Amino acid sequence: MPIVDVDLKERAYSIEIGPGLLDSLGIRIKETIGLSKATVITNPVIWSFYGKKIRYGIDSQGIGCDVLLVPDGEKYKTLQSAAELYKGLVRSGATRKDPIIAVGGGVIGDLAGFVAATYMRGVPFVQIPTSLLAQVDSSVGGKVAVDIKEGKNLVGAFHQPAFVVADTDTLSTLPDRQLSQGMAEVIKTAFLSEEKKVRFLEDNMEGIINKDADIMSRIIADSVAYKAMIVEQDEKDMKDIRAVLNYGHTAGHAIEAMGSYSRYLHGEAVAIGMTIAARLSRDIAGLSGSIEERQTKLLKAAGLPVKVPEGIDSDKILTAMKADKKRTSEKITFVLLEDTGKPVIKELDEKTIRKVLEEMSRG
Amino acid sequence: MPIVDVDLKERAYSIEIGPGLLDSLGIRIKETIGLSKATVITNPVIWSFYGKKIRYGIDSQGIGCDVLLVPDGEKYKTLQSAAELYKGLVRSGATRKDPIIAVGGGVIGDLAGFVAATYMRGVPFVQIPTSLLAQVDSSVGGKVAVDIKEGKNLVGAFHQPAFVVADTDTLSTLPDRQLSQGMAEVIKTAFLSEEKKVRFLEDNMEGIINKDADIMSRIIADSVAYKAMIVEQDEKDMKDIRAVLNYGHTAGHAIEAMGSYSRYLHGEAVAIGMTIAARLSRDIAGLSGSIEERQTKLLKAAGLPVKVPEGIDSDKILTAMKADKKRTSEKITFVLLEDTGKPVIKELDEKTIRKVLEEMSRG
Repeated sequence: MPIVDVDLKERAYSIEIGPGLLDSLGIRIKETIGLSKATVITNPVIWSFYGKKIRYGIDSQGIGCDVLLVPDGEKYKTLQSAAELYKGLVRSGATRKDPIIAVGGGVIGDLAGFVAATYMRGVPFVQIPTSLLAQVDSSVGGKVAVDIKEGKNLVGAFHQPAFVVADTDTLSTLPDRQLSQGMAEVIKTAFLSEEKKVRFLEDNMEGIINKDADIMSRIIADSVAYKAMIVEQDEKDMKDIRAVLNYGHTAGHAIEAMGSYSRYLHGEAVAIGMTIAARLSRDIAGLSGSIEERQTKLLKAAGLPVKVPEGIDSDKILTAMKADKKRTSEKITFVLLEDTGKPVIKELDEKTIRKVLEEMSRG
Repeated sequence: MPIVDVDLKERAYSIEIGPGLLDSLGIRIKETIGLSKATVITNPVIWSFYGKKIRYGIDSQGIGCDVLLVPDGEKYKTLQSAAELYKGLVRSGATRKDPIIAVGGGVIGDLAGFVAATYMRGVPFVQIPTSLLAQVDSSVGGKVAVDIKEGKNLVGAFHQPAFVVADTDTLSTLPDRQLSQGMAEVIKTAFLSEEKKVRFLEDNMEGIINKDADIMSRIIADSVAYKAMIVEQDEKDMKDIRAVLNYGHTAGHAIEAMGSYSRYLHGEAVAIGMTIAARLSRDIAGLSGSIEERQTKLLKAAGLPVKVPEGIDSDKILTAMKADKKRTSEKITFVLLEDTGKPVIKELDEKTIRKVLEEMSRG
């Protein structure tokens, strides 16, 4: 069973990956945090699948277990939901020492993590990501947040978990479109990381689509190991090191926002963003056409969109890119690839980006 | 001019104390944080006193300055106010690098600090405490929070400031009752710290009441230096080291909560709490009667209450003590004094506390 250690000194933690891990969750809590009362934060859909197993695992260790449910959906990742959760925690008598356990996808992880970061100025936090995207993306990095009307993730914190358990069994209930969007991050990380990881994906796409436990464990571990290595160097996203993880995200975020977060899932928008970034990489950073093609092929095989939406308005997408909260100058920051495993950060002017967008939207 | 350094490694910062410091605020921001846009968070009362001076100091350094006003009063230290402030920050285009400057007392410091800790996952934070209580108490420690209906300070973070400026000139507009409540913390710290500091207060009470700049600078510096020394050993309040700062607070919090936070100011409740803790210290920890008397005399000289409210219901105060969020066992944790500068933490049973309360409420 792969274990990835995230070495953040006194905030170090490990991510366990593999099938059947939920069964031993209670033991893990007891070992890592001690005998406390745990509060699970989840949504009713996830809880209907895994509630019984999780509750049994926790109860059997003599740890009290309260459950706070948040309705399913990103629209509940708000300060209002956080306020409801604080109330629930006070009512159940949760103290500063009692862990909050997030069971679910990115929305639950971000919201429960924000509550864990702020309830009584921070309580222990355990993450049980149940979607592929959450397992590879939000399980490492410590970024937690809620959305406000003015923008996504604008209110948040860095709050590292005590530990993370990525049980690949939970992928069995994951809809195909959700598997695909997780694969966007997996493919992104492979291209940022090394040829060997890209090749593994190319050789094992069938096993991935069939959610083979060994293959899924391997690709999740590969992804989080890379992300852990980056995050260890730049925990708070202050040094432009962590910025490479935004490969595909500059255009991706813009496309996501333009569809008002409903047309494309995050991973789908990132897939399109990666396609745009790869084309820019070929034009500007010397990426070979064959690597660009392999990326497109992998994204398609994973069921992801790779076409710039037809009739897209280049001005609108450029405006949306410029609205990104991470922008600090007049130019637009793009992560490009010189080769597999060789990301570079470039400040591009509008003209360069516009040319590629127009070329690609003509097909 | 006294400067107290708070050595929290990569989160280290300094506290400057003395008259006339607001004039050079812009220079300090430029030196410490760089040329950014600053957002001042304050209330209309404070801003009417110091707005012109602060704005001039910031503007004159070529730093943009936006001001977000929160109505005056603890009832605005809420998630709702934080939500309004996030909106204001987005609208004014504040980025992750732009500092938030809290100008005001504890309410503004806590609220603006919470917003600084969470807006875009944390932005630089500058504290300009304008009340004596805020200068000696909330300016060191990094504790920021908002209240929720279920309790005070239940939602918050540890967010260390980039620097703190305690301009003693701001005390000139401070009402007497506010000066007194700040003195409760000053007197508390002196007794926790050393005989010399207690003696200085006894010898200079007239200068204190007249807000003499040199004397005020000295007592503020003495207080924050002691608190900094404690906080350096226990930044996140996890090791029972920081707990000594709760001298007078176990009973104080209970009395404050029983009056629904309106009868007594925080410092007034702490003064009564210190009187109770001193009596318990004499009974249990061997504190000499003369030190107990000197404490009572100092508190009275500073205009603070030292009597357990008449006809107080011992059961109610005990219940309120037990509701304290920091309690982790059936007994009640008290900080007692064996001598000046010798605090000890004791777990007391109800009976011991009840006896002292009943004795004291009989007068």
